[in-house]
Amino acid sequence: MQQLKDRILSEGRVLPGGILKVDGFLNHRVDMELMRNMADEFAGLFDISGLTAVLTVEASGIPLGAMCASQWGVPLLFAKKAKSDNIEGGLYKSDIFSYTYKKNVTLLMSMQWLSAGDKVLIVDDFLANGEALRGLVDIVNQAGAELVGIGIAIEKGFQAGGKLMRETGQNLKSLAIIEKMDEHGIIFRE
Amino acid sequence: MQQLKDRILSEGRVLPGGILKVDGFLNHRVDMELMRNMADEFAGLFDISGLTAVLTVEASGIPLGAMCASQWGVPLLFAKKAKSDNIEGGLYKSDIFSYTYKKNVTLLMSMQWLSAGDKVLIVDDFLANGEALRGLVDIVNQAGAELVGIGIAIEKGFQAGGKLMRETGQNLKSLAIIEKMDEHGIIFRE
Repeated sequence: MQQLKDRILSEGRVLPGGILKVDGFLNHRVDMELMRNMADEFAGLFDISGLTAVLTVEASGIPLGAMCASQWGVPLLFAKKAKSDNIEGGLYKSDIFSYTYKKNVTLLMSMQWLSAGDKVLIVDDFLANGEALRGLVDIVNQAGAELVGIGIAIEKGFQAGGKLMRETGQNLKSLAIIEKMDEHGIIFRE
Repeated sequence: MQQLKDRILSEGRVLPGGILKVDGFLNHRVDMELMRNMADEFAGLFDISGLTAVLTVEASGIPLGAMCASQWGVPLLFAKKAKSDNIEGGLYKSDIFSYTYKKNVTLLMSMQWLSAGDKVLIVDDFLANGEALRGLVDIVNQAGAELVGIGIAIEKGFQAGGKLMRETGQNLKSLAIIEKMDEHGIIFRE
């Protein structure tokens, strides 16, 4: 998606440790018009007919997920992150490793809000190692719901998440895939 | 706001410990049409002319904040929550006590995205003790930005936050104020 790539090139900053800082439009100060345009882009990439929900994970996936859900007239579901010792009933749970927090995190979703018969699209702002995504897919599978696809804003193509998802047959589409980035610049995958 | 009160009465559940569970439409499975209607309601309650941003805090304030920002054509800013030992540069910080997590939490906002000259409206899904709100107001004050007002979806009128905010002169409007709630029912403030 050219508009997103242009914003990454003009406003993104590459920091040491493979970090791409795009918090001026994606995940701290959020450009909602860009989110709406990304939602429209996803609508052309996936079969959203009969969709019953958009699924994401707190916190930075929520603005994009909210605009997708709003544009398509379905509810937004967001999985919550809890420490692994948090025990509650009636929840789907999936343990992931958070590279941001350097610890195990459990994704939680109330069984009440996702079940067989649901048809969902997962969206998230970033895909790197794919741990959060693996947890979301696991929750959809636990629920027996249908997964239409996975829509990502920015995929770090040089990390393993995207490759793993595609190898396991997931219908993954990323609006910008970064092939390589360093202090000299950012190169997108064609 | 009658639509919100109706949803609280029909779908809300009062749990022990003063918890109102409305996760089926507000903060886990989110009804985005309701969020949009709440944004429109706030637009009639506050002077949003010249607004430069909507400010909220992760995670459950984001869907409502996103719809407000989208409807009004301004960016969404969301403060992040970090443990108190998290030290970074270039950030406004405000320490609050989280009753949800029973510990101190630091709200963080990059100085780059909020400064004097900004005119912001704070929105959040819930107001109870008002700790998160106190932190957000503190951040707006640190930035020297103008605070137009504070828009809340559900205020627990029997807890101290709303009273404190109004006593300190804040322009606080809540779309539903709960005067009393228990296993027998929910009573709204007129």
